[in-house]
Amino acid sequence: MSTVERVMEELQQVDVSGKRVAVQIPEGLKQYAGIVIDVLRAGGAEEVILFIDPNYGACDIRDSEAKRVGAEVLIHLGHSSFGKIIHEIPVIYVPITLDLDLQKIMGALREIKGRIALCSTVHYTKYIEKIRRALGDKIVVGKGTLAAIEGQVLGCDSGACSADADVNVVITDGIFHGILVKMQTGRKTFVLTPAGELIDVGPYVEDYLRQRETAKILAGRAKRVGVVIATKKGQINMVAARKIMGILGEKGVRADILACDYFLPEYVKGMPYDAYVFTGCPRVAISPLRRRWKYGA
Amino acid sequence: MSTVERVMEELQQVDVSGKRVAVQIPEGLKQYAGIVIDVLRAGGAEEVILFIDPNYGACDIRDSEAKRVGAEVLIHLGHSSFGKIIHEIPVIYVPITLDLDLQKIMGALREIKGRIALCSTVHYTKYIEKIRRALGDKIVVGKGTLAAIEGQVLGCDSGACSADADVNVVITDGIFHGILVKMQTGRKTFVLTPAGELIDVGPYVEDYLRQRETAKILAGRAKRVGVVIATKKGQINMVAARKIMGILGEKGVRADILACDYFLPEYVKGMPYDAYVFTGCPRVAISPLRRRWKYGA
Repeated sequence: MSTVERVMEELQQVDVSGKRVAVQIPEGLKQYAGIVIDVLRAGGAEEVILFIDPNYGACDIRDSEAKRVGAEVLIHLGHSSFGKIIHEIPVIYVPITLDLDLQKIMGALREIKGRIALCSTVHYTKYIEKIRRALGDKIVVGKGTLAAIEGQVLGCDSGACSADADVNVVITDGIFHGILVKMQTGRKTFVLTPAGELIDVGPYVEDYLRQRETAKILAGRAKRVGVVIATKKGQINMVAARKIMGILGEKGVRADILACDYFLPEYVKGMPYDAYVFTGCPRVAISPLRRRWKYGA
Repeated sequence: MSTVERVMEELQQVDVSGKRVAVQIPEGLKQYAGIVIDVLRAGGAEEVILFIDPNYGACDIRDSEAKRVGAEVLIHLGHSSFGKIIHEIPVIYVPITLDLDLQKIMGALREIKGRIALCSTVHYTKYIEKIRRALGDKIVVGKGTLAAIEGQVLGCDSGACSADADVNVVITDGIFHGILVKMQTGRKTFVLTPAGELIDVGPYVEDYLRQRETAKILAGRAKRVGVVIATKKGQINMVAARKIMGILGEKGVRADILACDYFLPEYVKGMPYDAYVFTGCPRVAISPLRRRWKYGA
């Protein structure tokens, strides 16, 4: 089934009849925006308002804005629920499953020696139980604390790989989650692409750590530091910001708390900071790596 | 007095003692961010959180986000209060007066024949009463409905120039407000720069109208139209959006309501729309004009 057919099928199951509906859509589904709206209208929605602000996860939930524009319900497309966010209007999470080559995936997993802690991004969690049943004890699957689904990995939650195993495998189509799973578990970690290609994330982690150490050294010379909090509901971390402010204060480094929705370089042009510490999504700090990930992100 | 001295003087008058304070700052003052924070800390603020999201006016008020990050009061720097926005925490507006060459300004105004409806952006409203007293009946000053201060012009409110007169003069350092004052009043309109240069906005308006007519013609061929609402508290216009949806529906044009904080071209890449109608700030639709404004914006 194609992605757009899956999107249609999932949305047709949501009861929107007679309601003013707001929708958040991830970048990868924006091309289907018209179809999304058509399906919701066909389902009897009184009004559909589609958010076009880039959305990278359920941590970035626009329920306040949805309420503000008169919506009665918010459909958050492409992600599952995240942590314990208090919503101002009801939110319906509609994750979308993407295709993968299950035979090749199974084949790649069988070739790995030892026990595998298996996880995936939300797009592939539906396959995990099937894989576990097929491969038996070789596969262990855990559940994170912020992630909603068993076996689901988030950039900020690798709890799905917390069980005892020899190696982690993350089914995903980017390198980001793999890097963080390896860093958070300390275990050998492979990314397994939907096409069945197995990639050791080790060199990418080394690359990122070098980048991070360099950033730390440069930041050590900073005269004034911006400690940045994200205002996205699932990313606000005042506890971390205050802790970092305290540490910097003890070291005699001047530091200020900055806040933003998206953290973009052009937002801080001309500002009096020599370094920034970002306390929101870990992805923000992983800028494009020297070692290129051949599939893109 | 320099701009930064004015900023310091204004902020020193705000009682922030013992409070958690959030601050919104316009782009033009971001270079003084460190000083802003230092002054508020010196004033006894318990904590200062500075928003770095670009801010172009009091219509874009981040009181919800300020509350979300634990602030007890929001200082909105560089703008005066706007319309009737309900705030979730107390908001203190701190407009900043900028320098101008009053002698040259007076000289330029004296040379204009007939009665002048005089207005300015918030940075220069403090000079308007002085000018009126010096030039007498030649000057008339009105008050808008969304603008807070007598003589203050906004891109969406030229009420300050509503009184009977022969010509409008807008003291400002850009062309945008002048264009909208001329369009909304239909009268001959000059922009008067802080340096005392008088510029007829007529050609700029003609230029913009040509641009707008071209956009309309191109939009007439659109198969699907995005009617965009801004989620900024002072810019939400569901009434306009629904009206436009109705008109397009009657004409048989498919149209959808889209929502965003900032409306940026990269947000709609790959989306199935051939044209957009933006219902928020009028400035968004005035893209860079063919006829260049030599001072910048």
